[in-house]
Amino acid sequence: MNIGIVGLGLMGGSFAKAVKRYAIATKVYGYARSEKSKKEIAELNLVDELVDIKTLKEKCDLIVLAIPVDNIISIIPEFLDIKDTTTIMDLGSTKDFIVKNIPESIRQNFIAAHPMTGTEKSGPKAAIDDLYEGKTVVLCNLEDNENIHVNRAFKVFQAIGMRIVVMDSDEHDIHACYMSHLPHAISYSLANTVMGHEDPKSIIALAAGGFKDMSRIAKSSPDMWTDIFKQNRENLLKSIDLFEDHMKKVRTMVEEEDYDDLKEWMKKANSLHEIL
Amino acid sequence: MNIGIVGLGLMGGSFAKAVKRYAIATKVYGYARSEKSKKEIAELNLVDELVDIKTLKEKCDLIVLAIPVDNIISIIPEFLDIKDTTTIMDLGSTKDFIVKNIPESIRQNFIAAHPMTGTEKSGPKAAIDDLYEGKTVVLCNLEDNENIHVNRAFKVFQAIGMRIVVMDSDEHDIHACYMSHLPHAISYSLANTVMGHEDPKSIIALAAGGFKDMSRIAKSSPDMWTDIFKQNRENLLKSIDLFEDHMKKVRTMVEEEDYDDLKEWMKKANSLHEIL
Repeated sequence: MNIGIVGLGLMGGSFAKAVKRYAIATKVYGYARSEKSKKEIAELNLVDELVDIKTLKEKCDLIVLAIPVDNIISIIPEFLDIKDTTTIMDLGSTKDFIVKNIPESIRQNFIAAHPMTGTEKSGPKAAIDDLYEGKTVVLCNLEDNENIHVNRAFKVFQAIGMRIVVMDSDEHDIHACYMSHLPHAISYSLANTVMGHEDPKSIIALAAGGFKDMSRIAKSSPDMWTDIFKQNRENLLKSIDLFEDHMKKVRTMVEEEDYDDLKEWMKKANSLHEIL
Repeated sequence: MNIGIVGLGLMGGSFAKAVKRYAIATKVYGYARSEKSKKEIAELNLVDELVDIKTLKEKCDLIVLAIPVDNIISIIPEFLDIKDTTTIMDLGSTKDFIVKNIPESIRQNFIAAHPMTGTEKSGPKAAIDDLYEGKTVVLCNLEDNENIHVNRAFKVFQAIGMRIVVMDSDEHDIHACYMSHLPHAISYSLANTVMGHEDPKSIIALAAGGFKDMSRIAKSSPDMWTDIFKQNRENLLKSIDLFEDHMKKVRTMVEEEDYDDLKEWMKKANSLHEIL
C-alpha cells in the first residue's frame, strides 16, 4: 500500500517514521505547503517523495491529514474526487466538528482518528521515532465507514503498536477535553501567571519537577491550539467552569483556614491515582 | 562528622542515601516516630542506627529535620539544649514562618534550607538514590548563622551535588509559591475536576502525556501539603488570584470567540520557555 501524508510536523512526520520503521508502506508520499517545511522534510528524509495533492490522490491508498484541525476542514474540498477505494484519515485533536463537516460523497472513505500522544514541539524537526508506540488511538463513528477503510485503519494503527479505542465523536470530544484541552488552558494560564511577575527569571531559576511538568505543554503551538479550543468550545467552557469551582474551593478553604476540609479534598484528588 | 536525620521519608531517606553514597558521614543516625516507619527504614537499610532524640543530640554534628513543616515547628523545643557546635537544619518547603519561629538560643545553629526537588511519593520506600544530584537548594537568612554552621551546610550540599542559592525567607516563599505551591493547588483541582465526572475511568483511559504530567503532583501527601498551604497562606492566596485572572481571561476569550487575542495570549505563555 502507498501512504500519503499531508503535513509532516510532529504528528505527520512521526507517522511517516512509524510506517517506514514497520515497513507498512510500499512508498510514503508527502505533501507540505511551505518551502521551509519542504526543505526540512527533505533534509530529515521523512518521506520517499514530496508531491502535489493531485499526485497524492493518484498514487495513495491511504491519505493522512496531519494538519491543524481548522486546516483539515478547509483542505477537504480538494479530496472530493478520490477513488472509492482510497482511505482518507485525519489525526486531529477534535472529532465532532470534523465528522459533521465531511461531505457525504467521501463520508464512507473518511476515518476520523485521534492518536492520544504528542509533545509540546511542532514542525518537521519535532518528528520522533516512537511517538505512537504503545499509545492509544481513538477512532470515531466507524458506522459511517465502509469496511475496507475501517480494516485499513485498524491494520495500520495495530502495525505501528497502538491500542485502538472506538467511540462516538461527541463522547471523544468530552474525554479529550478533560485529558488534553483543559490541561492546555491551565498550563498556558500558569505560564502567563509566572511570566506576569515582575521578576520571572529569578523565580524560574528555582523551577523543579512540579513546575516543569505543569508548564511543559504551555510551549505548544498557538496556531494549533487556538483551532482546537475553537472546535471544542462548548466542552472547554464547561470543563473550565468545573475546574474553576475547585480553584474557588481551595482558595476559600485556605482563606478561611479550613484545613481539615482541605486535607479531605486533597485526599479525594489522590484517589485519581488508583485509576491512573 | 556524624549526621542525624529526623524523618526518613522521601526527603530524609534520600538524604541518607546521598550522604552515604558520597561518604560524607562517619555514621548516619536516624530518628523516626512510628513503628511502621522504623521497620521500613531498617529493612531498607537507610541509616546505620535508629536512635532516640537524646542520643541524636549527643552523637551528631549535623541534625537534619526532614519532616512536614508543622512538625518542624513542634519538634524544635526538643533541640534547645544542643551544643553550640551542633548544626541543626530543616528541609521544609516553606521558610519564613520557620525562621521566625526558631528560638533565639539556637538561632545561630539553625540552617533554614529548601532543596527544590521531590516526587509525588512519600514514606521511607519513596527514598531514591539521586533525588538531590544536580538540583538547587535554597538557604535562607544565613546572616543569622555562625560561620561554622554555614560552612558545614555548604560543604554537605556541595558534596551531594547540589547548586546552592541564597535568599531571604520572604523572597523564598514567594518563589516557592509560584514554582511549587500554586502548581500543587492547580494539580489537585484538575484531579478533583476529573474525579468529579460521572465516568472518570473511561475518561482517564485516554490519558496521555499532558494530563499525566499535570496531575502527577496531585498524588502528593495531603498531610504534608496542608501544612505547606497553611504556612504560605498569604502568598498562595495572592498567586491563586493572579492565576484565576488568567483562567477568567481564557474563558472569556473562548466564550466571546476572540481567537486573535487567544493566540497572542498563548504566544506570551510560549515565551516562558525562552527562560526554562
